[in-house]
This record gives sequence, structure tokens and C-alpha cells, in this order.
Amino acid sequence: MNELRSFEPHPTRVIAPAQGPLGVLLPGMGAVATTLVAGVHLINKRFAKPYGSLTQMQEIERDDGTAVPIRELVPLAALDDLVFGGWDIFPDNAYQTACAAGVLSREMLAPVRKEMERLRPWPGVFDQTYVRNLHGTHVKTGPSKMHLAEALMRDTEGFLGEHGLQRAVMLWCGSTETYLQPSPVHETLEAFEEGLKRNAPEISPSMIYAYAALMQGIPFGNGAPNLAVDVPALMALAERRGVAIAGKDLKTGQTLMKTILAPGLKARMLGLNGWFSSNILGNRDGEVLDDPGSFRTKELSKSSVLDGILQPARYPDLYGNYYHKVRIEYYPPRGDAKEGWDNIDIFGWLGQSMQIKVDFLCKDSILAAPVALDLILLLDLAQRAGLGGIQDWLSFYFKSPMTDAGVPAEHDLFVQHERLMERLRSLSASALLDYPQASPYESTKTAGV
Amino acid sequence: MNELRSFEPHPTRVIAPAQGPLGVLLPGMGAVATTLVAGVHLINKRFAKPYGSLTQMQEIERDDGTAVPIRELVPLAALDDLVFGGWDIFPDNAYQTACAAGVLSREMLAPVRKEMERLRPWPGVFDQTYVRNLHGTHVKTGPSKMHLAEALMRDTEGFLGEHGLQRAVMLWCGSTETYLQPSPVHETLEAFEEGLKRNAPEISPSMIYAYAALMQGIPFGNGAPNLAVDVPALMALAERRGVAIAGKDLKTGQTLMKTILAPGLKARMLGLNGWFSSNILGNRDGEVLDDPGSFRTKELSKSSVLDGILQPARYPDLYGNYYHKVRIEYYPPRGDAKEGWDNIDIFGWLGQSMQIKVDFLCKDSILAAPVALDLILLLDLAQRAGLGGIQDWLSFYFKSPMTDAGVPAEHDLFVQHERLMERLRSLSASALLDYPQASPYESTKTAGV
Amino acid sequence: MNELRSFEPHPTRVIAPAQGPLGVLLPGMGAVATTLVAGVHLINKRFAKPYGSLTQMQEIERDDGTAVPIRELVPLAALDDLVFGGWDIFPDNAYQTACAAGVLSREMLAPVRKEMERLRPWPGVFDQTYVRNLHGTHVKTGPSKMHLAEALMRDTEGFLGEHGLQRAVMLWCGSTETYLQPSPVHETLEAFEEGLKRNAPEISPSMIYAYAALMQGIPFGNGAPNLAVDVPALMALAERRGVAIAGKDLKTGQTLMKTILAPGLKARMLGLNGWFSSNILGNRDGEVLDDPGSFRTKELSKSSVLDGILQPARYPDLYGNYYHKVRIEYYPPRGDAKEGWDNIDIFGWLGQSMQIKVDFLCKDSILAAPVALDLILLLDLAQRAGLGGIQDWLSFYFKSPMTDAGVPAEHDLFVQHERLMERLRSLSASALLDYPQASPYESTKTAGV
Amino acid sequence: MNELRSFEPHPTRVIAPAQGPLGVLLPGMGAVATTLVAGVHLINKRFAKPYGSLTQMQEIERDDGTAVPIRELVPLAALDDLVFGGWDIFPDNAYQTACAAGVLSREMLAPVRKEMERLRPWPGVFDQTYVRNLHGTHVKTGPSKMHLAEALMRDTEGFLGEHGLQRAVMLWCGSTETYLQPSPVHETLEAFEEGLKRNAPEISPSMIYAYAALMQGIPFGNGAPNLAVDVPALMALAERRGVAIAGKDLKTGQTLMKTILAPGLKARMLGLNGWFSSNILGNRDGEVLDDPGSFRTKELSKSSVLDGILQPARYPDLYGNYYHKVRIEYYPPRGDAKEGWDNIDIFGWLGQSMQIKVDFLCKDSILAAPVALDLILLLDLAQRAGLGGIQDWLSFYFKSPMTDAGVPAEHDLFVQHERLMERLRSLSASALLDYPQASPYESTKTAGV
Repeated sequence: MNELRSFEPHPTRVIAPAQGPLGVLLPGMGAVATTLVAGVHLINKRFAKPYGSLTQMQEIERDDGTAVPIRELVPLAALDDLVFGGWDIFPDNAYQTACAAGVLSREMLAPVRKEMERLRPWPGVFDQTYVRNLHGTHVKTGPSKMHLAEALMRDTEGFLGEHGLQRAVMLWCGSTETYLQPSPVHETLEAFEEGLKRNAPEISPSMIYAYAALMQGIPFGNGAPNLAVDVPALMALAERRGVAIAGKDLKTGQTLMKTILAPGLKARMLGLNGWFSSNILGNRDGEVLDDPGSFRTKELSKSSVLDGILQPARYPDLYGNYYHKVRIEYYPPRGDAKEGWDNIDIFGWLGQSMQIKVDFLCKDSILAAPVALDLILLLDLAQRAGLGGIQDWLSFYFKSPMTDAGVPAEHDLFVQHERLMERLRSLSASALLDYPQASPYESTKTAGV
Repeated sequence: MNELRSFEPHPTRVIAPAQGPLGVLLPGMGAVATTLVAGVHLINKRFAKPYGSLTQMQEIERDDGTAVPIRELVPLAALDDLVFGGWDIFPDNAYQTACAAGVLSREMLAPVRKEMERLRPWPGVFDQTYVRNLHGTHVKTGPSKMHLAEALMRDTEGFLGEHGLQRAVMLWCGSTETYLQPSPVHETLEAFEEGLKRNAPEISPSMIYAYAALMQGIPFGNGAPNLAVDVPALMALAERRGVAIAGKDLKTGQTLMKTILAPGLKARMLGLNGWFSSNILGNRDGEVLDDPGSFRTKELSKSSVLDGILQPARYPDLYGNYYHKVRIEYYPPRGDAKEGWDNIDIFGWLGQSMQIKVDFLCKDSILAAPVALDLILLLDLAQRAGLGGIQDWLSFYFKSPMTDAGVPAEHDLFVQHERLMERLRSLSASALLDYPQASPYESTKTAGV
Repeated sequence: MNELRSFEPHPTRVIAPAQGPLGVLLPGMGAVATTLVAGVHLINKRFAKPYGSLTQMQEIERDDGTAVPIRELVPLAALDDLVFGGWDIFPDNAYQTACAAGVLSREMLAPVRKEMERLRPWPGVFDQTYVRNLHGTHVKTGPSKMHLAEALMRDTEGFLGEHGLQRAVMLWCGSTETYLQPSPVHETLEAFEEGLKRNAPEISPSMIYAYAALMQGIPFGNGAPNLAVDVPALMALAERRGVAIAGKDLKTGQTLMKTILAPGLKARMLGLNGWFSSNILGNRDGEVLDDPGSFRTKELSKSSVLDGILQPARYPDLYGNYYHKVRIEYYPPRGDAKEGWDNIDIFGWLGQSMQIKVDFLCKDSILAAPVALDLILLLDLAQRAGLGGIQDWLSFYFKSPMTDAGVPAEHDLFVQHERLMERLRSLSASALLDYPQASPYESTKTAGV
Repeated sequence: MNELRSFEPHPTRVIAPAQGPLGVLLPGMGAVATTLVAGVHLINKRFAKPYGSLTQMQEIERDDGTAVPIRELVPLAALDDLVFGGWDIFPDNAYQTACAAGVLSREMLAPVRKEMERLRPWPGVFDQTYVRNLHGTHVKTGPSKMHLAEALMRDTEGFLGEHGLQRAVMLWCGSTETYLQPSPVHETLEAFEEGLKRNAPEISPSMIYAYAALMQGIPFGNGAPNLAVDVPALMALAERRGVAIAGKDLKTGQTLMKTILAPGLKARMLGLNGWFSSNILGNRDGEVLDDPGSFRTKELSKSSVLDGILQPARYPDLYGNYYHKVRIEYYPPRGDAKEGWDNIDIFGWLGQSMQIKVDFLCKDSILAAPVALDLILLLDLAQRAGLGGIQDWLSFYFKSPMTDAGVPAEHDLFVQHERLMERLRSLSASALLDYPQASPYESTKTAGV
């Protein structure tokens, strides 16, 4: 493998400038990925504004009290420096996939149709054992999982060369794999590589992608709840090679709402008897999660957030005995438009019960795309700043944030947000502040509002 | 008036200890006040726990990282040191009123029935001009508003003497008065006292109560949205005499939800097209707000929160053009059980619209009572700590927080919470930390859950 | 006026065949009218199917037990025989109006754009006194209301002549006028015509249209809740001339739901404590109803339905004491997409209370258009069958059905439906059954689903 | 068995008078049964009115146009003639069970506590194979299912003798058994009795109860969705012996709503893309249905109603392709208070989609009890009128109405209601109309409203 190029981490905390184009590698070019790609092109052409993206729109208060856009505080890659590539298990180009997904209308896609059509996925690494409800047709074959990993690296190598890229980020946008628990093969890099060679069933496709990325020094983010990079072997590899990693599971609809509401209940010391969450959705994601194995992976990701926020050990009278149930229901009439319905049974003064019901008519890919964009830009920033290993300051973006062993994950959206801001402020101190200051969106015509 | 006793503010920041009983003066002994009083008695008798009260249940992280209950950090009055008195425009005792309000069942009230029956309101200061939908029968009369103020002070004086009280706090729990704008009579203390003497129509009953409290050095909190103490004359009086004041309008159901959700939307840079809020409620509060004048007062209180949080000036693309509408509908079938229904039209990536609907089946008095309790205890604390004038660190508890002239109010629940915590931490530094450390609730049997 | 042509009613109950084209006259060419027109053209071109229309899709059980489509049972005008004309107070053609209304996408309108552009409204009869929130620019002027009526008749005359029409129907699709009570000027035709000449303020524009239609023997339906033809003078005129009339207020979203649910509650003897209905909508209709006068007209129309169904006099224990409140809120973010939110407080066995909440995310014009279509075809049928005066068998389609003096309106959707079916069965007996039997929609490509 | 008494059916259609007390036999004395029993006693003592019961409150229009209460039209047993007995697998008396169920407050139960305490269940026939989530402790044992059937008959015999009863009705109020399909053992009475003797696993406890009832000539109603009497062998037995039977599954919350709404959609020719129904409930019923086998039985019962109403074969464009999904979620915080949440995706004119969401905060036992009461009285009426076999005119009360082989079930609530009324009218013609005419409820004080 040493014939494949590998990026070297930066030795000091001086942030390398964001010079030149940035490769964006997307395993899984479905609704989320194509909504992201279409959006970036539309924004670059001034047809839209980057709503939902903190890196593009949010301001941060500096230590001196003044506010400044995040993208002026730290040196981020510019949106028109992004170059997209990716893998999928169906051969459709990004335009075809976007049309089929139905998230964006053809009318909205028209100005970027050409760019989208040009983006054709490489054959994916896939095994139906891990995603039972999909039947991929555009897949790599090889005698061992190690061979598949090498094939992925060759795809990347070609892509970097073709576009003259010096930097890249990989973000898993594929489907949720079936539930796997960490096992001995995930413990050490040696065991893992051994497993790749002997086709160990404990190694799922997303782990193969993560391994390939890390071996090439490419930061890896995980947008789904399956383990992928969240195993000791790969975390150690990321640490050793100084490669930034982050995960798991983009925080989009219902869980986003949960991590907003639960901190509010706790702030007011309102007790919780139960929280019932149902989701209906009809896209490929819904189809995949109709399989109990994939659902189990998702369910665990979604279930942990309440305990993390409410601290039952500290407040046993209020939060020691609540009933939390999460359901995801495949319901084709909705397509990508998801509906999250929550019923929350709370109690207050003198134990009197009250109910909160939240009905969130959301669009999964619309909520996910700007999160994906931010993660790509911030993982690239972390990498240039020499921050290897788990980026727990990115927990704001995840349903189930990765942390170092033994460290509990933070789920409170507002605490997560404050940690993100703090890290950006500290990074700005070491950054080369020669980044262009003019807002690139001033003369934008918005497409949507 | 100098024959009436007046408390003196403490000259230094050493917090005086919370020794002896604390008088609690409640203008308006309706559903909120009686739910508060019943609850305190039930808690003192170990029939209930103080859910919803930060002073009784919440822990705070100290500078050294350890967590400690708020009531152990700062010297608060103990619940069994509270002595209640109050005024109302109907002569029913607190037990009768609580039964009529229907917030708590007779079964739940049984153990404290005697204490409640003993609490009989003094005749109230009332004028139907200011609350058109009420018809008080138990009211004071007098040749001028100044005479009414003096009558209130005599009631207080008698109450303090009867119970041997050295300290008291007054919390307005009366109905929402009709909309009044600050006018010259409210500008200076001189003009105000002149107005009291000549029965100026700009002076509403709640202002008379506030004036009486301040003249006696008693901290005044305002649980409703009418001006009361929120006029320059009375703010100056509070400042000059070093009396703590706070307001306006207890943050209970829908607005509580709004100040939880809006910060979450902003954190994620999700845009807002509109927010429609409807409330249905059937209690006396609903009846009062069925009058356009009282509704106007409430509407203004409820409307300001979104702009305060979302910062349209900073984020014009996201929040520069949203439509915010608040409705309160009198609907008798519900009694004190309120229903707040919100529809929130948001937009995200590429301007795509999504909807959030929140249905909050809440109980107004259940949410208000612990807030009232905290305000009483914290105003007493502020007073003992020598903090006169507006206590803006209590904004956490209010829909429409009072601030010093020109200072914008903070509405974000989480920022408000952090400010409350910070102030408590700083007060603890100057407090005499000989407060009893044992939790008084450990062996409590809960009544409600 | 005798120089203007007037249709003669048919002397016997033999139904005249639906030969030749049918003129459709639409006062008010806004969202509803243009959605209707676009839909008819799209259906005729096989781009869509007539969902929501009973005359086009529903089957009816004949006395011999077999089922037959309504349109095969009775001789209705064919959709491709409809010729549209109309008035509006803005000069935009139907395509422009449809685009501005935003009910249908431009993509959907494309195949019928030409037909829509060709449809340009004649200047309307308008007076802002009756619709305060509109400011018409394309309006007729004249010395008296009688002159305006004659101008309308000349428009009609020209339209009939131009297209060679022998039959026409007029359906009011204009805005809701301010609340008017029947007064002496509405009592007799003489008083009414006198009023027209002296510009009596009790005569609103919709009455002028109704008068013009009746004078020309043209059936008149009223899609809005204002009186229009629902005054004794015009009812007598319709009766005398044998012209079919029907009204008021197309039954679309929330009221439709109410007249479905209430019969179900009554069938099961479930009691009612209260029914709260709120609507948010952002189209021109919402803007008009933001005026208290227009709202009052609408409120009355929407309020009567529950009593009519629940029979409080018969069931005083169950329905003698419920609280019914209807609100319509102008909320621009929604455009034509309306949201009706209902809270229903019911009680059952042992008086235990339960709640039903219905949230109807509907589209006003989509629900109204097929109702408008059916009314046009059925009024034409009634006219050909010699049925003059009020057509109370069409109550199925109205929020506030017109009836003969003293006869209570039927509101139960299922009873209304049965009456409609019964009348159609009885009409079929007298019809010339040489109507084409083949379904015209068999090979249709649907545009929408 | 011939030593056990068996009622003889009446040979002619002259209805025997409802003389003397009526035994009510309830297998399963849980929340529904005890709510029924408590209610009947409260009504008899004038503490409550029989809301929700058609036999007690509804009026019917006679052929001559006048309206008359149902209970005056046909000779029904009087409420104070009912004598209750029953079986359960837990030994608690009816008062203890009612308190544990929490449907009615202790305050409400107080006036009938003695009557309820006196009602102690006989040990039940139970086998956990059929209801996996229950663990009965108060159960009959015997060498064969035939022995268990005989034990049930002896219980009944003793009960009848003790109270001097000439008539009785049995209504299954037990839990939903696991899903069973009809099999050869259910085909003929011979095979069935053979199966009872050899303990055939295809025979569940509810079938044993049904067999016992029929053998004694006692009408049997089935309030749950399991087969019970709905097998050919028992239907034939009922037919042969002229015993009235009816089932299955009392129509209470969500399905009631569905059979109200779906006819409304069809009446208006609004198409259906999908209907998603979720239920959360925390009572014993919820616990039982948490088992996949019991849920399957319930799911089938709840799923059939839409097709039955919407007639997809007749209206393929509108109803040929909808997605219907029903979920029942055990959620303990709610107890007996159930919440049914429906999302309905409809389409109208030009295929435009709309959404209806219904949230029904209902109480299962409160909705079920009056249905149970009506069924008891009407089965007794049917029996006295000589109507043996399946009473399909009672379909109004069931989620999954039993019908004769090959006859499709009617699900439309309004058609069901009309059939019920028609049958009552025809029965009244043959009834001895010497029934007391005075309303027994006139001077009642209501307990609940």
C-alpha cells in the first residue's frame, strides 16, 4: 500500500492555510449527498443562500465582545473550492439520484444540472448482510475486504490526481448498517487488518471506507449511526496518524428537537414521566430502517440523548423513572418528507402531570445537508490545525457523539454549541488571519424564500 | 406615613442571614397564589416535593467543579419559615378559592385544609376601569389612591406585627390590567405621589400596591404583564431605598416553550417565516384576557421574546421577515388547564420550508407556583445582600423581563439560566455559609407521581 | 331590460338534454375560479382526473341495486362543453392570477397556459364598503346600482352571443362581503329594484350579480357566505321565473370536517363540552376575513352547523351546554395552504372527559374547485329539469345551506349526501337516458398522484 | 351435560317480555367490566346518566315521523334488573380492580363501593400460551378443556340459581388472545367437542367460554378481536340452538374515528395515499398487545375497516393504492388513558395532497362500557325475539363485525347505524308494547359534568 499517497499531519498548532481546492469524498450518494452537492453549486452560482450552515452564516462573539462571522474568524475552505466525488451502489449520476429522491424540484435543480450529471459515483463496497433492505447493483468485488479497501484508496488516489487536490475529507452518507457490537477484531489495528484479509464478518463496509480514508490521512466523519470509525482499532489509527475523525449520526429532526427541549425542561426542574417518539418516513432511509437490525442501530443512537441531558443520577425524583420509546415507521406516501411526532409526559408542582406534543414536519436531507457541509469544512480545519483523533467539539452536529473512552457524551444542544464556539475561538488565536473578509453572499438571489 | 415601619437596606455586600420567618404578601389570591400556598404547606408536611422550583431542587456547579444544591450555596429562607398574607377582591378564604379554581383536587388539599381556611384575604384595591371583566365585591374604598396605598401599608404593618416578622416580600399575583403606556405621572416620584393624591387615571391598582411595598422597604415582584413597578418613578424609588424589584409576567406555558425552541432554531441557523401561537383557557385569567385592553397588555408581553432571541438585525436573511401572531382565547370548558398550540414555519437549506407544531396541554398555576416561590426566596436573598433596584438576573422567570433603561432584555432561556447561576455563584462568595446542609426532602412521600 | 335575452324555464319535468356548450359565469376570478378553470382544461386534455367531483367520479346505487356513475344516471353537461367567462376587480388574466395564487405550480399550469391567458375578466362591480381589505382597480362605474346590473347583463349577453351559448350558470366566487342583515329593501322585488335605482346601501355587489343572473334566467350559486341571492326579493324572483338557485358558502376544510365528525359523535351518544376551531390562512381570502365585518359573515356561516346536527333540544344532557368558538387568522406565511386546527372536548360514560384534536393541512381552492364544478353542472341539470327556486338538495356542498323560509337547514354530511343521491335517482326517472355511457377518463394520465 | 339447564329459544317472532332480572356474565373482570358495573350501579342510584349508550339515551324516528327513545320502542331489560357475575384470572373483587385500573376516582366509586366489593370473580379459564404477557393466579384446572367448559357451566348454573335468573347474556371482556387461524378442529361441532376432550391447542379459552354459553342457551358477545365464537362450529351451534351471538372487538377509540372519517372522505371523493395510525396506552390491554401474537390479532381487526368502507375495487383511482399502517405501543405513563394519533394523507383536485392529523386523547374503558351495556341489552332482546345466530345488525358496535359466510362486513359507522335503527323499528312492530314509558333519568344528578 505504500505506493498510495498519504497526507501528513501538521506538526504544530499553527493552522495551515486553506489553499487550493478541497476534495469531498462521499460514500453513499443518495438524498443527503445530492442535496448537499446541489446546494453548494446553487450557492456558488448565487441562486441560494447557505441557510442552516453555521460556518457560512453564524456569527460568534469574540473575546473582545464584538461579533464576527465564523468563516472570518477561522480559515475555512471556500465553498467554490469544494470538489466532489463519491461511491454508490447504484450507478445513477447525482442529477438522476436527486430527481428520484424528490427533495428538490427539477425547477430548482435546473441551473446546476450539468454539474450534477457530471458527478458519477464509483462502484461501492457493499454487502447485503449489513443492510438487508437494499440490493446494490453497482458494487466492487474482490477476494478480501482488504482488497476492497485498496480499491477504495485507488479511487481516491485517482480523484486527487485528476483534480490536483492536496487535501480531502470523507463523510459517510450511506445507509444505516445493521447493529454490530465492538468485538476483538475491532480492538487493535493488527486484528483489524487481519480481519480485512480474512473477510471477518464483524467488519462492515463503513469500516472499510473509514480504514481506507485514515490510511491515506484523510479525515473521516460518520453521518450514520453504525460504528464505522467508532472502534478502538480505527480510533487508534486516527490518533497515531494524526487524522481528524468525528461521528456518529447527523442530528437532524426529532433528535434535534429532543436535545433542544430536554435542556429546557431540566432548566425549569420539570419532571419527566415518559417520552414517546414516532417517526414516519418514506425514503430509502425509511426502507433501510424497516429492517430490525438497522433499526436497532438507529434506536440506540436516538435513545441515549435523554439520559445524557437529564442526569437521572443527580435528579432521581425528576428523571429517575421515565419511559422512553422511539419508533421509526416506514411509510412510503411521504417520500423524503419525514414527520416526527413526540408525546412528552411531564410533571410539575405537586406532581401534576402535563403533556407536550410536538409534530415536526421536516425534510431529512434539508436538515442534514448543511450539517454535512459544516462537518466537511470543520474536519478540514481540524486537520490543518493538527488536531488528530476524535473531534468531540463537533458533538453539536451528532445524535450520538463519539468521545474518548470513558468520557460521557454531551447531548445538550446549547452546551454543545458553546463548546463548538469555544473551540473556534481558541483556534482563531492560532490561525493565520489573512482569510478574505468580504462576505461572499451579499448579492445573492435566494432561490427558496 | 413615617409612622409605618420601613425596612432598611443592608449597606454592604455581606449577605444577612435568613433568620426568622419571612412574610409573603400576595395581592391577588386566586389560582396561582392558592396553588403556591397549598404546595408550600404540603411540602412542609412531606406530602409533596417541590418539583419545578430551582431553589429547592436544582444543583449548580461551583467554580471548583463540584455540584451543590442552590439552597446550600446561598442562604435562602426555609420553606417552613414562610408566612402568607394577601389581598383579594373576593372574600373567600384560600381553601374555598383553591376548590373553586379546581387546580388541585379536594383529596390533595385535605391535609392542608385548615391552614388554607385560616388564610383570609384583606379587601383589595380594585377599579373595574383597569380589569373590565371582573366585578370585585371585597374592595377598599377611600377618598384618594394615596389613602388606598396607606390602607395597604396598614394591612402589612398589622400582618408583620401579628406574626413578628422582620422581613417580607410582595409578589403581584392579581389579574392582568388593561394596557397603559408610561406617561408623565409615572416619570418622577413627586408626580406619582401627586397623582395618587388626585386620583390620576394613569395609576392602576398594581402601581398602588408596588408603591406601598417600596415605601415599606419590601421587595416587589410582578407576576403579571401590567406595568406595576415598571415605571420610572417607582424604579427610582426602589433604587433610592435599596429595595429589590423584579418583573414582569411569570414565564409559564407557551412563552416558556418559545424561549426554549427559538434558541435552538437560531443555534442551527434555521430561518423563520412565521410563528402562530394560540391559547385556549377557561380560568379567571382567560376571562380577564377576553377584554381587548387586558389582552393588549398580555400580547405585548408575549410578543417581544422572539426578536430578542433571534436578532433580526444580525441575521436579516433568516429572521428579518417573520410573521408572529399571538392569540389568547377564553374557552370555559378547560378551566385552569390551558392549551397552547403553536405552529412554527421554518426554512432551511435552499429555502425549503418545514413546520413544527407544538401542543402544550399545561396547567397555568402548576407552572407558575414554583416560579412564584423562587422569586419570593430570591428577592428576599437579593434584599439581604443589599441589591436594590431591578434584579435583571431573575429574567429567567419572566416573559417580559424588566431591565435598566436602554438595556435590551434577555429572552433566551439558556442564557437567562446561565446568568442566574452566575449571580448565585457570586452571591455565594459573600454569603455566610453556615446554612444547614441536610436536604429536607430526603424522606418525603410524593403526593403526585 | 326586455331587450336582453332571458332563458325560459321548461314547463314539464321531462329533463331537456344537455345539448351544446354551457356558459360558466364566474364573478370573482381568484384562486378558486382559476383552479377550477385550469383543472377543467387539464382534465379535458387528459392530464388529470376529476378527483373530488361527485358528478365525474361517484357511483350511485340504483333502485335495482346496481351501481352506476352519477354522470351516466342523469344527463349532465360534458366537461369539454364548458365555456368560461367572468368578472374581477383586478385586470390580470386567469393564468397570471393562477400563478400569483400559487395553488398550482407553473409546471402543472403549462399545458393549459394558452387557454388560461385567453380568459380575461370583465371589470367587476365593486364597492370597498362591502369588502374593506380589498382595493379593486378594474371596476365598473355607473350612476346607480341598476346601471351596474345592466352592465353585467350586457357582459353576459355579449359572452353568450360570442360563443353561441343557449345555457349558462353563474357561480359567485368572489370575496366574503361584510355582514348585512336582511332589511326592508330586500323584502320584495319592487323594493329591491327601487333600491338598485337609488343606490341603497343595503344592496351589496353580490346581490347585483344575482339579480342580473336571475333577470336573464341564469341559475345562480353562491360560493361565499354573504347574502347575495339569499334575500326574499331574489328568492321570489327565482321562484317566479323558474330559475334554480343555491347557496351559501362552499363547504371546504374545517366545516367539512365538522359535519363529518359531529354526526359520528351523535351516533354514539358522546356528549360535547366544547369545540374550538382556529384557522390560519394567508391568501386573499384570509386578508379579506381579517376585517371584522367580513369575518362576522363567515363566522355565522361556520357556527350554525353544530346545533343543526346535534339537536340540543332533543339531547339537552349531551348537547345542551357546549361552547363553540370559531377563529380565522390571517397568517401570510401559508399562502393558499390553510390549516384548520380543532379541539373538541367530549364526554362519555360517567361524564368522563376526552379530547379530540384535528389538524387539517388543507388547500382551500383544491377542496373548493370540484365543489364549484359539481354545482355548475347540477344547477344546469336542475334548470333543464324545470326545478326553479332554492335547490336544497344541494346542501351537501354548502356550509350554510339555503332553505325555504322556516325549514331548518340540514348539516349532517351523510344525510345531505343521501338527499343528493335520492334527488338524482328521482331525476333519472324523468331524464332522457340517451346520454353517452362510456367513461371519458379511462385512458387519462394523472398529473398529480 | 344434560343435567345443566339450557334456555330454549322462542319459537315465534313475538318478543317475549323482559320480565325479571337479567344475568350478565363477564369473562374478564378488568377495566372495561368494572367500569361497566360501577356505571350501572351509579346510574341506578341516580349519580350518573348513561352517556354513550344508545339504548338508554338515543331517540329513533318511527315510520310515522315522530321520535321516540329506543328504550320505549322495544322492550329492553331495565338497568336495575341487571345482575352481574364473572370470571377473572386474578382474585381481586370488582372494587379493588376498579381502583387499580384507575379509570374512575375513588371519590366517584365511593357510592357503589359495597356493590363492587361483593362482586368477586370465579376462577378463570386461562392458558398463557394464548396471552403471553399475563400471568394468571386465579385459574381453573382440569384434565381437559371439556372439563373446564363444564366447570364454567356449573359456575353459571349456580349463579342463575342463586339469583333466581331466567335469562342471561355473556360478554367476553377478557384480553386479546394470540392470533389463531380457523382450522379443521373449528369446522364442525363434532370436531370441536372432540378437540375439547383431547385438549386441542387450536381451542383457546375464549372459545371454551363461548361453547359453555351456547350450550346453556345464553347469548354470547365478543368484545375482543380473538376468534371466540367466530368459528364455524360455534356459529352452527348458535344457529341450531337459536342462540344470539355477536362480535368482534368493541369499536372504541381510533377505529371509531376511522369509521367516521373514511365515509366522509369517500362521500366527497377525496383520494387516499396513506393512513398511519399509532396508539399509545399503558393499561393491561397495552401490556397484552405488546406481545406480537396478540398484536397480530388486534392489527387484523383494525386493518380491515378502510377497504370495507372505501371500496377500492369500485374506485381504483382514489383508493386503489393507499398505504395503511396500524401500531399499538405499550407506554406505561398513560395508564388507561389512551392516545390515538392518526396521520391521513389525502389528495383532491388535480392530485394535490393534503394532510389530516387526528389526536384522540381517549379513555378506552369509558368508550367501551356503554357499548358493552348496549350489547348486553340488545343480545337479550334478540334472544327474546327468537333471533338466533349472528346478529349482524349489531355491527355498529364492533371493529370487526361477524357476518354470515361470504357476506362482507359493513364498516361505515353511518350505514351501520342506519341498519341498527331499521332492525329496531322492525322489532318494535312485533314487540309487546307494554313497556313502561316514563324516562327513568329525568331527575338524575349527573356525577361527571
